[in-house]
Amino acid sequence: MLKNLKTLTTCLLFASFSFAQSKHPNLILTKDGVQQIKAGLGKYPLLDKTFAEARAGVDADIKNGIDVPFPKDPGGGYSHEKHKLNYQNMLNAGIIWQVTGDKKYAEYVKTMFLAYAKMYPSLGVHPEGKNSGTPGVLFWQSLNDAVWLVHAAQAYDCVYDYLSKDDKKFIEDSLLRKFVQYMIVNDSKTFNMIHNHGTWSVAGVAMTGYVIGDTDMVNKAIYGGNKDGKTGYLKQIQQLFSPDGYYTEGAYYLRYAIQPFLVLAKAIDNNQPSLKIFSYKNGTLAKATSVLLQMTDADGYFLPFNDALKDKSWESGEVVYAVDISYGSVKEDPSLLYVAQKQDRVLLSTDGVKVAKAVAAGKSTNSFKWHSMALTDGPDGSKGGVSILRSNETPDAVSALLKYSAYGMDHGHFDKLAIQLYDGEKEILTDYGGTRFLNIEQKRGGRYLPENRTWSKQTIAHNTVAVDGKSNYENNTKKAEAANSFSYTHFNDLSNKAFQITSGKDTTAYNGVGMQRTLAMVQPEGIEKPFLIDVYRLSSKEQHQYDYSFYYLGSLIETNIKYAASPQMFPFGKKDGYEYLWVKAKGTANTNNSLFTLFNEHNFYTIVTATSNNAEVFFTEIGANDPEFSLRNEPGITIRENGSDHVFASVIEPHGSFSATSEASKDSYGSFAKIEVIGSNDEATVVMLTNKKNEKWLLEINNGKASATDAHTVTFDGKSYSWTGNYSYKKVN
Amino acid sequence: MLKNLKTLTTCLLFASFSFAQSKHPNLILTKDGVQQIKAGLGKYPLLDKTFAEARAGVDADIKNGIDVPFPKDPGGGYSHEKHKLNYQNMLNAGIIWQVTGDKKYAEYVKTMFLAYAKMYPSLGVHPEGKNSGTPGVLFWQSLNDAVWLVHAAQAYDCVYDYLSKDDKKFIEDSLLRKFVQYMIVNDSKTFNMIHNHGTWSVAGVAMTGYVIGDTDMVNKAIYGGNKDGKTGYLKQIQQLFSPDGYYTEGAYYLRYAIQPFLVLAKAIDNNQPSLKIFSYKNGTLAKATSVLLQMTDADGYFLPFNDALKDKSWESGEVVYAVDISYGSVKEDPSLLYVAQKQDRVLLSTDGVKVAKAVAAGKSTNSFKWHSMALTDGPDGSKGGVSILRSNETPDAVSALLKYSAYGMDHGHFDKLAIQLYDGEKEILTDYGGTRFLNIEQKRGGRYLPENRTWSKQTIAHNTVAVDGKSNYENNTKKAEAANSFSYTHFNDLSNKAFQITSGKDTTAYNGVGMQRTLAMVQPEGIEKPFLIDVYRLSSKEQHQYDYSFYYLGSLIETNIKYAASPQMFPFGKKDGYEYLWVKAKGTANTNNSLFTLFNEHNFYTIVTATSNNAEVFFTEIGANDPEFSLRNEPGITIRENGSDHVFASVIEPHGSFSATSEASKDSYGSFAKIEVIGSNDEATVVMLTNKKNEKWLLEINNGKASATDAHTVTFDGKSYSWTGNYSYKKVN
Repeated sequence: MLKNLKTLTTCLLFASFSFAQSKHPNLILTKDGVQQIKAGLGKYPLLDKTFAEARAGVDADIKNGIDVPFPKDPGGGYSHEKHKLNYQNMLNAGIIWQVTGDKKYAEYVKTMFLAYAKMYPSLGVHPEGKNSGTPGVLFWQSLNDAVWLVHAAQAYDCVYDYLSKDDKKFIEDSLLRKFVQYMIVNDSKTFNMIHNHGTWSVAGVAMTGYVIGDTDMVNKAIYGGNKDGKTGYLKQIQQLFSPDGYYTEGAYYLRYAIQPFLVLAKAIDNNQPSLKIFSYKNGTLAKATSVLLQMTDADGYFLPFNDALKDKSWESGEVVYAVDISYGSVKEDPSLLYVAQKQDRVLLSTDGVKVAKAVAAGKSTNSFKWHSMALTDGPDGSKGGVSILRSNETPDAVSALLKYSAYGMDHGHFDKLAIQLYDGEKEILTDYGGTRFLNIEQKRGGRYLPENRTWSKQTIAHNTVAVDGKSNYENNTKKAEAANSFSYTHFNDLSNKAFQITSGKDTTAYNGVGMQRTLAMVQPEGIEKPFLIDVYRLSSKEQHQYDYSFYYLGSLIETNIKYAASPQMFPFGKKDGYEYLWVKAKGTANTNNSLFTLFNEHNFYTIVTATSNNAEVFFTEIGANDPEFSLRNEPGITIRENGSDHVFASVIEPHGSFSATSEASKDSYGSFAKIEVIGSNDEATVVMLTNKKNEKWLLEINNGKASATDAHTVTFDGKSYSWTGNYSYKKVN
Repeated sequence: MLKNLKTLTTCLLFASFSFAQSKHPNLILTKDGVQQIKAGLGKYPLLDKTFAEARAGVDADIKNGIDVPFPKDPGGGYSHEKHKLNYQNMLNAGIIWQVTGDKKYAEYVKTMFLAYAKMYPSLGVHPEGKNSGTPGVLFWQSLNDAVWLVHAAQAYDCVYDYLSKDDKKFIEDSLLRKFVQYMIVNDSKTFNMIHNHGTWSVAGVAMTGYVIGDTDMVNKAIYGGNKDGKTGYLKQIQQLFSPDGYYTEGAYYLRYAIQPFLVLAKAIDNNQPSLKIFSYKNGTLAKATSVLLQMTDADGYFLPFNDALKDKSWESGEVVYAVDISYGSVKEDPSLLYVAQKQDRVLLSTDGVKVAKAVAAGKSTNSFKWHSMALTDGPDGSKGGVSILRSNETPDAVSALLKYSAYGMDHGHFDKLAIQLYDGEKEILTDYGGTRFLNIEQKRGGRYLPENRTWSKQTIAHNTVAVDGKSNYENNTKKAEAANSFSYTHFNDLSNKAFQITSGKDTTAYNGVGMQRTLAMVQPEGIEKPFLIDVYRLSSKEQHQYDYSFYYLGSLIETNIKYAASPQMFPFGKKDGYEYLWVKAKGTANTNNSLFTLFNEHNFYTIVTATSNNAEVFFTEIGANDPEFSLRNEPGITIRENGSDHVFASVIEPHGSFSATSEASKDSYGSFAKIEVIGSNDEATVVMLTNKKNEKWLLEINNGKASATDAHTVTFDGKSYSWTGNYSYKKVN
């Protein structure tokens, strides 16, 4: 597989050393696109709305007067926001000029470019650049400069034929070439990074190269600074995406990365169609949009694992690019049109017009359809992955996620084998996500806050097990990113809605500790919502402390733990994220089954978990050692067991309902009486569930080499258990 | 005024000693109503939907088999919920029988009544009744029994003509008369209470009296157990409502009380129209529905002062009665139809059909219209009140509330001069409301939790001033309810949207401390949202500790207070609610203006408040001493000043916006630089506002006898200030 990829890259290298300088515009908007927009205006409401809003924004700026301020402010500050607004308005004005032929828009773009070209050579590194390892010139971080260039290159393309030769020379010499020079040379670290920041950088540079006819710029962008294919766009596609189209940083950053990935793909497709970029690496970019849209909750918000803010949905601007380019240039999937309607705008390009037309023709589905999926991670799909279990395709489905992927680069979290649970659009077992007030200047210029590293990324911040009070990989990103640091997929079977199961393994996060987590979603017939069985096996030759945590929203309304509330609150620990948790109460499990019932809006959720008699239970709240009040004060439960081998086994059951309007509560008690770990060894784990009617079910899990056909027999306490394949789930009385 | 009321009551007494036994049905549903429903079915969607749902519920119960369980469970438990479901189904089945003539529905009601009649004589006080001061028989509290009877009386009315004489005798002797006997005699305390529980009780008894033709029952219900007018329905109307239609327990309990008040009014109107009940006390009941609907947030949820749960809106079943009876029998206000559409159902009665018909005819307004209003409290309007300031009539308005009403009976809070602030549907400065998980059995049977009394009601739990670490009236309900314990309206002027102002006074909550709070809503021209000026004056001959608090949702993103975060958290105090607050951080005001900027979803809110140099500032979180995790862990800020006379003056400004989709933040800093108390004495308080452009405004407030025409001149620091009327607001540079 790796060898094939290499051959493909080499072929592309040869195919691409030159390209004909294009007519203009020819990046995202093309001459054909201009005609399509002209023909479509007045016919397709989404197109009309988008065009009118773009024009209104530019008209307002023309009225107010162009301002190209000296760069000085951090994120959220005036100069930061103004330069962002400028690149958007420049691009929109360029497009409007192409469509309407009204010179005031071309003049606007020209004036803007001349102002930037006049200022740029006098600028050094941005004064707030000290807060970034990769400072920019117009912005505090070079990432924003790259985004500026991605838009500006397109704007320049739109007015290219309008500008005088002298103006072009001035703009290219004083601004564009210097800008690109800064990115390729001064900020070569970003330019050659296999990372979304690198993708923004190469996209800006390549697009500039196409417009001004600079082959070298284009080739450096596509094949890396040394043009050897070891960095650059193609390498980014190879390394950052799995063969399934999963992006290693996760959903939230795929949302951000997909714009430069697809924008540059589209620009390449228009300028060097022979590269067949949408087919590269078995069509990875063609799959990525679908994967991105699947990694959402019922309202289209991205599942918040890794650094992620919870207020980003598929309505984000980047996803408009993804949806429209995918629909127009990859596959006319009608569910994309559903998302386009939610976005309420389209690209001003051939693809965007195609979407607007299809929506106007009523080709959209009535809702988005979510599917269960096991996504592999890693360039060749060998670095574990992410499984998403859905009880059905609708927004009302119960959804669960198990993460056994690679760390996820700079935005990764030490969250091996973490889970998340949603009931419809409601978060039930939550992933905290990142700690940041994006673009809010008062909160450290809108950057990631220190607590993002010291709390959000830590293992204890997640619905998983922290060993010996420490985070995965000793809280060391390099170790987490090392070549041999990855989890792997044990087995998945998501083919049967009545019983879906996923199992991931890791042996790298903690020295000498093997971890396997198996998550099953069981949908009994005639019952509205499925329940989950969670079996988390830890094995070691040494004694360890295992902290198994759940974070939730809503209220804990019942537990059988005898606990003492804290008359004063201390932090849970001193490091690895424990210092951010207050201990609200502490207790001891006094039965072999601990029960926790949560009430979240209109429903109940009961966790029944097997506990040893000396298990300690901590009721926590996020927010200790948070001097700037940056954290959300959400509750958690940590169950602490000590041992060498240990299995945490839980049944997590959504049940009942409460209506405030009718004051009626129904089934506020769960149906399970207990869950028992019958036995566990290197071959298998056997768990038994018992409900309140004394009905029993066995879940048998293969812990050895995965195989759907191998037969297993294990004996625990003198009783033998037999099944075939990776698992068996059966009623036993 | 009081004398007139007395005369009216006397007249009514004479008018009502007898009534003709009616044809059946004749309570809410009448023979005319039956015809209206028959004629309307198939024509008016709201009617169709309501009827179909009622029928589906009854059909399901017929299929499952009637169950009249032995009463044993607390709220939320099986027998509790089943008896609730039974009374609803009995009533619905009775109506369906009247409309369809299908005997199976009459048989269903008959069977149900016979089962209750068979069981009832064997029952004693409910086994869970020990948890209530007023235990019931079918339910743990007699209130629920009364609600049962209100429904059952109507159901009985519907099948009256269907039942054999023997069945009627059995049901009346064994069930209905015994039931009424329990309410009038055993539970005379409730029956004669001037309280919503009393209203449910008299409504059930009166309606039973009408159906079975028992004049004595009816007269006791209307004129009290001793038939002397000192208790009973009319006295309840007199005492519980102000002349404006404000109900002394507040919005949330008016929502609950309005059902028996209007249902009984409707039944009286059908059986004793000569009483002209809707005109009683100048049409109080006619005003109450409008007042109720005005006391809502932008989504129709009731403003949560006093004991109130935040999940109740105008969609609640009780409000269907209020809206439909008001529309049908009081006034055809089209905004009622807007609410009826939200309710998505109607009463199955003449009034309900009228509403369904009007909605089908498109007579509804497009949205509800909210108005600024100053509502008086107290039987004659002299016990202070509640002012609601709205920036406009739409759901997007900024809304603020100042409470200077009487305590509010059992469900009152010690929250003299508390404020609330909303921006559109968002709570900005919050009232905690009550502490209860309604009908969730695990939380103490769904009853009010102990923390409702010890936290929710306490002064420190509110956006107001707590004196000397104590609650109003020394936390003593009897003192709060004493005849001489009430605040009063100082002045209101809500006539000008550019500047609305309300001012309330209290001298009874704290011995020897006079309090006056003035709240102004200022809408500058061309600015999207108004800001508030809050001036809270305390005066005393003795030294006191004054704690001025704000509770908010969202994040504190900036403050100029130098503070130290707590490495471990202690409760704020030991009693009067302070014990429920953790102190997250403590600081000292080191300028004369303290600033706090909050970020709540998509907007910013800055409070600038005048502080003395030694003011202490506490950043708190609710949830200390909460062993059952019953409280919401929300943040607050308390500013502590010491002195005899003190004025807290703040400007509270909504500003700016943040869009996660576009990542754009705008105006994240407020526009005010400072607020100063120029001077304050018994005649006046003068406050000066300065914005960041150094523009200044003076707010002059009359503290003496209220008068819109008196001229004032006061001198502070050698400078004199003159104006006419209760206030003056003017730009001074």
